[in-house]
Amino acid sequence: MIEPIGNQYVVARPVYSVNTFAEEHKKKDRYHKTFLDHLKHCCRCSPQKAKKIALSLFPIASWLPAYQLQKWLLSDIVSGISTGLVAVLQGLAFALLVNIPPSYGLYAAFFPVIVYLFFGTSRHISVGPFPVLSMMLGLAVENVASTLHVTTTNSSDSTVSNASVSMEEKVTVAATITILCGLIQLIMGVLQIGFVVIYLSESLISGFTTAAAVHVLVSQLKFMLQLTVPPHTDPFSIFKVLQSIVTQIKDTNIPDLVTSLIILVIVSAVKEVNQRFKAKLPVPIPIEFIMTVIATGVSYGFDFQHRFNVSVVGTMQKGFQPPIEPNVMIFTRAIGDSFGIAIVGFAVAFSVASVYSLKHDYPINGNQELLAFGLCNIVTGAFRGFAGSTALSRSALRRGTGGKKIQESTGGKTQIASFFSALIVLIVIVGIGFLLEPLQKSVLAALALGNLKGMLMQFSEIGRLWRKDKYDCLIWIMTFIFAIVLGLGLGLAASVAFQLLTIVFRTQFPKCSTLANVGRSNIYKNKKDYSDMYEPEGVKIFRCPSPIYFANIRFFKQKLIDAVGFSPLRILRKRNKTLKKIKKLLNEGLLQVTPEGFLCIADGIKDSDSEEVDNNQVEELHQPITTDLPFQIDWNTYPLKVLVPQVTLHSLILDFSAVSFLDVSSMRGLKTILQEFIRIEVDVYIVGTDDDFMEKLARCEFFDDEVKDTIFFLTIHDAILHILMKKDYSTSKFNFSQKKEKDFDFAINTNGSLRHRECQVPVETKF
Amino acid sequence: MIEPIGNQYVVARPVYSVNTFAEEHKKKDRYHKTFLDHLKHCCRCSPQKAKKIALSLFPIASWLPAYQLQKWLLSDIVSGISTGLVAVLQGLAFALLVNIPPSYGLYAAFFPVIVYLFFGTSRHISVGPFPVLSMMLGLAVENVASTLHVTTTNSSDSTVSNASVSMEEKVTVAATITILCGLIQLIMGVLQIGFVVIYLSESLISGFTTAAAVHVLVSQLKFMLQLTVPPHTDPFSIFKVLQSIVTQIKDTNIPDLVTSLIILVIVSAVKEVNQRFKAKLPVPIPIEFIMTVIATGVSYGFDFQHRFNVSVVGTMQKGFQPPIEPNVMIFTRAIGDSFGIAIVGFAVAFSVASVYSLKHDYPINGNQELLAFGLCNIVTGAFRGFAGSTALSRSALRRGTGGKKIQESTGGKTQIASFFSALIVLIVIVGIGFLLEPLQKSVLAALALGNLKGMLMQFSEIGRLWRKDKYDCLIWIMTFIFAIVLGLGLGLAASVAFQLLTIVFRTQFPKCSTLANVGRSNIYKNKKDYSDMYEPEGVKIFRCPSPIYFANIRFFKQKLIDAVGFSPLRILRKRNKTLKKIKKLLNEGLLQVTPEGFLCIADGIKDSDSEEVDNNQVEELHQPITTDLPFQIDWNTYPLKVLVPQVTLHSLILDFSAVSFLDVSSMRGLKTILQEFIRIEVDVYIVGTDDDFMEKLARCEFFDDEVKDTIFFLTIHDAILHILMKKDYSTSKFNFSQKKEKDFDFAINTNGSLRHRECQVPVETKF
Repeated sequence: MIEPIGNQYVVARPVYSVNTFAEEHKKKDRYHKTFLDHLKHCCRCSPQKAKKIALSLFPIASWLPAYQLQKWLLSDIVSGISTGLVAVLQGLAFALLVNIPPSYGLYAAFFPVIVYLFFGTSRHISVGPFPVLSMMLGLAVENVASTLHVTTTNSSDSTVSNASVSMEEKVTVAATITILCGLIQLIMGVLQIGFVVIYLSESLISGFTTAAAVHVLVSQLKFMLQLTVPPHTDPFSIFKVLQSIVTQIKDTNIPDLVTSLIILVIVSAVKEVNQRFKAKLPVPIPIEFIMTVIATGVSYGFDFQHRFNVSVVGTMQKGFQPPIEPNVMIFTRAIGDSFGIAIVGFAVAFSVASVYSLKHDYPINGNQELLAFGLCNIVTGAFRGFAGSTALSRSALRRGTGGKKIQESTGGKTQIASFFSALIVLIVIVGIGFLLEPLQKSVLAALALGNLKGMLMQFSEIGRLWRKDKYDCLIWIMTFIFAIVLGLGLGLAASVAFQLLTIVFRTQFPKCSTLANVGRSNIYKNKKDYSDMYEPEGVKIFRCPSPIYFANIRFFKQKLIDAVGFSPLRILRKRNKTLKKIKKLLNEGLLQVTPEGFLCIADGIKDSDSEEVDNNQVEELHQPITTDLPFQIDWNTYPLKVLVPQVTLHSLILDFSAVSFLDVSSMRGLKTILQEFIRIEVDVYIVGTDDDFMEKLARCEFFDDEVKDTIFFLTIHDAILHILMKKDYSTSKFNFSQKKEKDFDFAINTNGSLRHRECQVPVETKF
Repeated sequence: MIEPIGNQYVVARPVYSVNTFAEEHKKKDRYHKTFLDHLKHCCRCSPQKAKKIALSLFPIASWLPAYQLQKWLLSDIVSGISTGLVAVLQGLAFALLVNIPPSYGLYAAFFPVIVYLFFGTSRHISVGPFPVLSMMLGLAVENVASTLHVTTTNSSDSTVSNASVSMEEKVTVAATITILCGLIQLIMGVLQIGFVVIYLSESLISGFTTAAAVHVLVSQLKFMLQLTVPPHTDPFSIFKVLQSIVTQIKDTNIPDLVTSLIILVIVSAVKEVNQRFKAKLPVPIPIEFIMTVIATGVSYGFDFQHRFNVSVVGTMQKGFQPPIEPNVMIFTRAIGDSFGIAIVGFAVAFSVASVYSLKHDYPINGNQELLAFGLCNIVTGAFRGFAGSTALSRSALRRGTGGKKIQESTGGKTQIASFFSALIVLIVIVGIGFLLEPLQKSVLAALALGNLKGMLMQFSEIGRLWRKDKYDCLIWIMTFIFAIVLGLGLGLAASVAFQLLTIVFRTQFPKCSTLANVGRSNIYKNKKDYSDMYEPEGVKIFRCPSPIYFANIRFFKQKLIDAVGFSPLRILRKRNKTLKKIKKLLNEGLLQVTPEGFLCIADGIKDSDSEEVDNNQVEELHQPITTDLPFQIDWNTYPLKVLVPQVTLHSLILDFSAVSFLDVSSMRGLKTILQEFIRIEVDVYIVGTDDDFMEKLARCEFFDDEVKDTIFFLTIHDAILHILMKKDYSTSKFNFSQKKEKDFDFAINTNGSLRHRECQVPVETKF
């Protein structure tokens, strides 16, 4: 029981060093689980666990029974249809990015939705084609298909054969790569390495998706202008594409450009209206759908295809096609690209899913998501679709089109809504697909761009992050640059590496500070921050606010030396050197001792304070000072003022309360630093450490005759009180400590050695 | 002034929240240097600074004037000669690794020493050929030379032409790559990026050098057995080499094997003797030199070359050769390899140099070292030498051969000793080189292996590190594996990346703990560690001992939920749901209130505590509880026990004294957590933060109507006292807080709403 006394902080207890505290309060023996225990726990098997695992493999089994048919079904249907219409358009548009006929995009919009329904843990994301993935896939397809073509036709000129790769071959390659991506994701899921997604911070995802939006923007330009841009490989592909576009800009198909600009302007404007009046509109205007209908009608009515030579969607495959047979040769050639696509696809989907899961508070499981996406891609690939993820724009759109009311109604049961959206896609595939044949490709591009505004608006994050946290801002910018320059796959890897590096940076240059007492109680704050500070004479309190490890131990040492104002090693060496000279002088009889101190009767000790370092004795000089002299030397009043700088410091307190860990390198470095201070008679105290900190130090043979485990105190104030008491106490006894030397004098022995005689003058307590 | 009262810690002061403390103690306005200020400071120019920079470019200018000719010269000569003899042998041996004639190794042992004398900041390292670098260079030479040959001879079959690459071409290529390495190092030095070496921790260097020793061991095998092993490229080159050796093992030249084994055994034994009796021996036995002389004599005398078909050193070039003209075509082809060689060479040299600099306490400058090594390599390459570093074995050897006495005498003035060692090499080059012509190559290999023992002994580090620090042990092992499997260049990169990742790992899974009071004063320790703990009722103290950032915010939240025993979000949603039902019941008149609490007169509230989540109102449920009801509900005595779990917690204290930083992601996560707790009426306090922590939070818009900046307290004890007082105080006023509800009763209004009537029974203070 603690009794509060008014609004007062009143404490009276003994001063505790860690050791004295441990004596008074016995620690319980606790069994700490070893790595083996954790492993055992992890691998233990029970029927319950097996059932739980089995259930977790089919998340649908846990949420479908709770589905409230009456209440939710209607809104699910509404939401599903609106999403489905957009999915159709996006499927067509993104198939263009893969460089395959648009109709295959419908397969990519259909199969993953059905599979994800059973295996996915997120209730809100809309799986299907994703523009950036489609682009990455498109590049991989071009590369693999052309090399395949070369090897099969045995032609030596690959650039010419490139054009002759048939659409059918490309579709096969795209589907095979998709299967491979799925396999990679499946294997990652089985190996339970879905946890890697925690390394995607908000700033990284924001920067990455913005870069992805820019990539999509650039990739759609060629359809808007109807230019033939050859595929370019990363890195720098985006610049190469832009260069291609700029050099061909005079070949722009003006009708295509005009149509797409009109569509883009109308779509943007109506979306703005939807956004602004979403409270008043019962249902947002489905502008994409309207524009598609109009554009298709106009294009058909005026026969744009032949009159203006615009590029249209063209023949739509009706119905499904038989599954393909994976080609192992493609597997081996595309493994690198597939890895990138698999990771990016999963990363994007998971980051979107986690946004919704945080918002609606249900758990999502990274590993299960990996399994789900793996299966999605395998099935999709098998039926000639291509790799998908979740569409950021589609998910955002669903919110946008749904407005407040529909969004709420779609929450939680979206995978049923997805089912209806898949139904819409199915209807288009098997039935009314031919209606879309006269649609211009540039219209598809414009519709895809219309959804990117939100993602591109994320540029404003830079300013916001700069004000909040420089490192996060740096992560954003570097992620964006990496993803733009290196491409998305390599860029993501580089960004994650950079982001982890920032964690090191953040701890690498800690803001070390010197503390002092504020208000004469037990509060210690940065000396520079307050005016009325009290710092006991000869005491320094040094705080390091970060872990200490190999990369910052030198920085720590330098900061400590800056704080105390001298290098202990240098002092130590000077003292040892001087000691040698004194011994020599004593032996030669050139030194006398007066009550005031030494008297040098020779001019033997010169100030040779140059930087010449007598390395012959370098090891010896680093040793503790050996006083085989029959008297002690007070270095601060040492009369031969030429050699040894004065040290007014007698105690150094290191506040380690924020030092979360030490590694082996830093431990050795720290020990050296402590030794150096202890050897020049500065007492070092370490305060505020965790309990297991000392245990670890002991395990690492940190302690010896010089660095003892008695230097640990619970708090700064404990250490300060201990120091004050020690100094106070010491004044009543004989010693040679600071400022008391003049109370004593020496008597010279007959044989030249010195003896000290105790002083009869009562010691005036200076503290 | 603080007055110590015996050995007592006595404090009496007001309880401070961060805000009240700030009111009493005004903070000084401090100007914090911006990035621009630092940049200005860095770029400022003055004559002093210019002079300092000029001097720092020629470190010899600062140490040569202080050279004590009489005292040091003799020992420098002795040390120099012994090092020089070894340098000759190693130069010959390592040239074999580059696949060029041995005599070029002498150039590589001569030129860098002379250049480093002027530009190097380390006084102890012995620059010159380094086996691992020689191997890397050898591989690069094979690759580049063969492709060059192909392009110049225009042949399509590169494997055949490989053999026809002349020795002269190889020497040119090796020299050109060396120049390129030098340029890379020089540029890095000029760009001041020598600081990267701080990322090489002791564990990493130990693992890396051990792997290097294994590489050297394997590389020398082919000379000991005299087998022809084709060059293999990384990764996995070491396994390919071993495979080559094993498949050819029957072709071993037995005389070579026997000679080298004999040499190896003798050298190892004598070194052991040197080590054991170093105190008694005036000078260690120069066994390498002796064995070389004997082996050369025997080989010459018995004409080993023709009798046993052993491979000998062969014709030695006498004197120097004119500088080569760099070939730009080689530059472009070898840029990747050169980068690896440049980094590894510098990393090895710097790590050895820093060991000596720590030991002998003189500063070494990473950037200046880069400049020095860059110049060394450029000059060496220009004169047909090959890239060097410092020889670990040679430096160790110098210590080994020198013993305690010579080692001390070599300290500090080694670069003068190096000068003499260069002289010895010079003598061999211009004069007596021909004497070494009959020496077997296998002898050179055996001598090189003889020096690896120390490095291979580092395997024992694994056990030592495992006991000290698991992460450091992991770094060692992974570095070793990476360097073995991926090769040294790529392996070093992977190791550094892995090592930085461990810093993230260390902070990613913090050992969070629940604290409680020990000894009824102001000491709070892990609740599990001590037996006599006091934890005020309804209060949890949670400590997170590491920074919180994107990768561990979820972990932190999970640990916090585990510690308090419930998920606040879930409670909040249950309460909001219940509230809706109560309102409904009240409106329907199905709820009455008695002095004992509510009385439900209908069976309208059922326990539908299934996992079905009414996501329709999901956003609403996360809102703070809106009590538009005319009475307050005490959730813990809420009589409809079916729905809302009881929460006995009223205050949560987060001890953030070891949280060095928060990033933007974690800040948002933390705010959500705090909000959730605050909304279920748990007061949250954050204690022990730095001053700028709060400033940063304020800057990031962390505070609002719910999460206020009054939740910060100086220490845990301050917060505890505040809580106790608040609870104490609150008992004297009317409220509905814990356990006091039965002192009050409700009066039902005519219109069905509730009013409360103040209780006349005096409140019994329970605290």
